[in-house]
Amino acid sequence: RSGEMAKSTQLIDNEVFRAYATYTAIVLLKMMLMSLVTAYYRVTRKAFVNPEDTASFGKGDSAKKFLRTDPDVERVRRGHLNDLENIVPFVGIGLLYALSGPELSSALLHFRIFAGARILHTFAYLIPLPQPGRGLSWAVGYAVTFSMAYKVLKTVSLL
Amino acid sequence: RSGEMAKSTQLIDNEVFRAYATYTAIVLLKMMLMSLVTAYYRVTRKAFVNPEDTASFGKGDSAKKFLRTDPDVERVRRGHLNDLENIVPFVGIGLLYALSGPELSSALLHFRIFAGARILHTFAYLIPLPQPGRGLSWAVGYAVTFSMAYKVLKTVSLL
Amino acid sequence: RSGEMAKSTQLIDNEVFRAYATYTAIVLLKMMLMSLVTAYYRVTRKAFVNPEDTASFGKGDSAKKFLRTDPDVERVRRGHLNDLENIVPFVGIGLLYALSGPELSSALLHFRIFAGARILHTFAYLIPLPQPGRGLSWAVGYAVTFSMAYKVLKTVSLL
Repeated sequence: RSGEMAKSTQLIDNEVFRAYATYTAIVLLKMMLMSLVTAYYRVTRKAFVNPEDTASFGKGDSAKKFLRTDPDVERVRRGHLNDLENIVPFVGIGLLYALSGPELSSALLHFRIFAGARILHTFAYLIPLPQPGRGLSWAVGYAVTFSMAYKVLKTVSLL
Repeated sequence: RSGEMAKSTQLIDNEVFRAYATYTAIVLLKMMLMSLVTAYYRVTRKAFVNPEDTASFGKGDSAKKFLRTDPDVERVRRGHLNDLENIVPFVGIGLLYALSGPELSSALLHFRIFAGARILHTFAYLIPLPQPGRGLSWAVGYAVTFSMAYKVLKTVSLL
Repeated sequence: RSGEMAKSTQLIDNEVFRAYATYTAIVLLKMMLMSLVTAYYRVTRKAFVNPEDTASFGKGDSAKKFLRTDPDVERVRRGHLNDLENIVPFVGIGLLYALSGPELSSALLHFRIFAGARILHTFAYLIPLPQPGRGLSWAVGYAVTFSMAYKVLKTVSLL
């Protein structure tokens, strides 16, 4: 058993993989926070989508009026979906990139810029900042993932 | 070649990773089932979104009336999106957690509670159960993923 | 350090894992392209969702009229969400499958059919092709992921 355990910790002992683990955990936790922000706005704006969620406000029309969309709730939901669209490729391509043997400094640069860009993107979306604030932070994260994919495809000799 | 094959099966021979593989496959298959449930409701409720999907119902207005939203279809779609928002972090953070060398008993506890909570969440959403049924099942899965992320960040010495 | 590096490149040296890396990078890049297609249609159709995105078109009502939904934009967004719903399970289950020691020929067959099916699905959705074009390409990718999940669950002795 101890032999197996030793084997299972090899990857996490690798410096590049540790960096990947750190920043992947950070961006996924950031994405998870969007659920709490959505819940916060749904409760404070009293804007729900499921009838069973408004049952505590009473029966009939008194509860029905809380089944509505709210601009703030919809804004957070768009930010959450944008996270899914961009963080899923980062997690998948980032894993392959971390296993393709990059320099630690290069890997850290990729992971840190991506994490920073996505955190900025969230602030740009929720405050909201004037454009091109959100657009630029999105593009930086997109470019980082693209750069990692290029390294992966070069390592497997496709490029 | 046989040496490479041996290497490639190391991870899957590790008990914690096998547990991760089992429960990740289960929750991803459960998420995939949502597509079939959506298709079932779209066909039985005759509620479609793409004009080309209603072509078999005839031309013009006779087909156009099936381009509509249906409460049951939208409910399944919300459940599907909630799966994406919560199962993606589980798969990503769970992989890092499985590689961070947890006790098998502790890993099984995390994976089983998450899988159970997400299955309950689906039933709570689709039946639907009165609140806080859905809310609690969501929170349990969320807390499990958070707990795994804490272990990962502690292992990489960030916490 | 060189020992660690050697260890980290073991997986990427495995032929099945290299195939997984190749096709995972391809389908994730394809999914990322949907963001650019959405942006292209938003700009050419002048159909935006965030008020700050229309600020360059002027103030007040002259900008407000561009806050609208457009059928082409919505179509791309549905294709993007369908990618998330189907490519996320492929990336997760595909990783477990690649680590479960399949024959290289069998793995390549799975990965190539999935990638081809998802590329066809995108064309079928965006052109759009008459049904059952989109439905069939969706079902093929779905079946491939299911087949990989079956192999994973058999390897971990659950089936």
